[in-house]
Amino acid sequence: MAKEMTLLWGSGSPPCWRVMIVLEEKNLKGYNQKLLSFEKGEHKSAQVMEMNPRGQLPAFKHKDRVLNESYAACIYLESQFQSQGNKLIPECPAEQAMMYQRMFEANTLSQKMADVIYYTWKVPEAERHDSAVKRNKEALAAELKLWEGYMQKASGPFVAGKTFSLADVMVFPAIAYLYRFGFCEERYPKLAAYHNSLKDRPSIKTSWPPTWLENPQTQDILKDL
Amino acid sequence: MAKEMTLLWGSGSPPCWRVMIVLEEKNLKGYNQKLLSFEKGEHKSAQVMEMNPRGQLPAFKHKDRVLNESYAACIYLESQFQSQGNKLIPECPAEQAMMYQRMFEANTLSQKMADVIYYTWKVPEAERHDSAVKRNKEALAAELKLWEGYMQKASGPFVAGKTFSLADVMVFPAIAYLYRFGFCEERYPKLAAYHNSLKDRPSIKTSWPPTWLENPQTQDILKDL
Repeated sequence: MAKEMTLLWGSGSPPCWRVMIVLEEKNLKGYNQKLLSFEKGEHKSAQVMEMNPRGQLPAFKHKDRVLNESYAACIYLESQFQSQGNKLIPECPAEQAMMYQRMFEANTLSQKMADVIYYTWKVPEAERHDSAVKRNKEALAAELKLWEGYMQKASGPFVAGKTFSLADVMVFPAIAYLYRFGFCEERYPKLAAYHNSLKDRPSIKTSWPPTWLENPQTQDILKDL
Repeated sequence: MAKEMTLLWGSGSPPCWRVMIVLEEKNLKGYNQKLLSFEKGEHKSAQVMEMNPRGQLPAFKHKDRVLNESYAACIYLESQFQSQGNKLIPECPAEQAMMYQRMFEANTLSQKMADVIYYTWKVPEAERHDSAVKRNKEALAAELKLWEGYMQKASGPFVAGKTFSLADVMVFPAIAYLYRFGFCEERYPKLAAYHNSLKDRPSIKTSWPPTWLENPQTQDILKDL
């Protein structure tokens, strides 16, 4: 089956990483894949644009079905390969509700993270304001306090409780990304424990961003958070 | 069943409207609901904050299961009430893939729409730039051209083809919102046809924003788009 799949991806990108984690969890090995460089602008190449007209990664295809949105690809794969590999949506209605809720809250976390980390990349120099940087950082800190509280109250080691689920697939790459940008372990101990407990999970370890392994040096954008 | 559900909502909000459309499509009548006013700041009231710590609407609950993210609530309801009302996820794998892809692309559409419509509300006066307004409008126009193209190539009258699905649940309220803010019918004929063909669908008509019925006057923020 996986031979009929193609993934174009970039190292470190949380949306790409999500799809790779699901492919591992569903035991979908041997798919066609190509690592592209954001720095070289390869996400705007003809090969990507043909699959994804927004020029973004991941660009993913199963047969002739294009699924570039990471959430779409992950839910589709879970739906099509339900009985293969690990089940990523809990059956218990209460756990399922919690899973969907956290899974989509992860979008807000990712957005607030992007507002801080990509600020100088996204906002032209003449439009930058220290007041906006400060406000974005405060919004991200408030968001992270919320997640620290969620993990404190969780009924198990995973985002939605006792089992690894699509909620973890969405949340973990964002949390790992925070550490890559200097996020402080001590100030958010539950998020740190979550990160440490999951980073050696086979699906995550196997798909760990290769550029992070080559260059373990973190940046310090988030060190004061 | 629906007696065990509570929805706190605001008129015109696309995320609230999505949940209401799904409740109608799944024939979940008689749920508890309360219309709150954004203008009066009621989305920051204690009743909302208790369910949704971000102080946003919708705030939705089934039994003690909180589902405030509109995507989470809609997928959960479809999953829990699969055999009731209309099926909102197609079974055919190719249609399902298309549905998930468009459903999550709708997030990008909503985001680009919000960047334009809410600009003066979100960005403090001292941080506003005409160059940012222009860039946001261009990004929204490019996004809408993409959707106009999707509707041109669609294999049926709905976003994902032949049947009404969760993709329409996500996309339709955004398109209707565009028209509320002066979007031009003539320049995007396929989107206009889509809007006109769906606006009388019972689930949509029944849940039409009451403030829009009371005051049909549109704004003109998007008239040049």
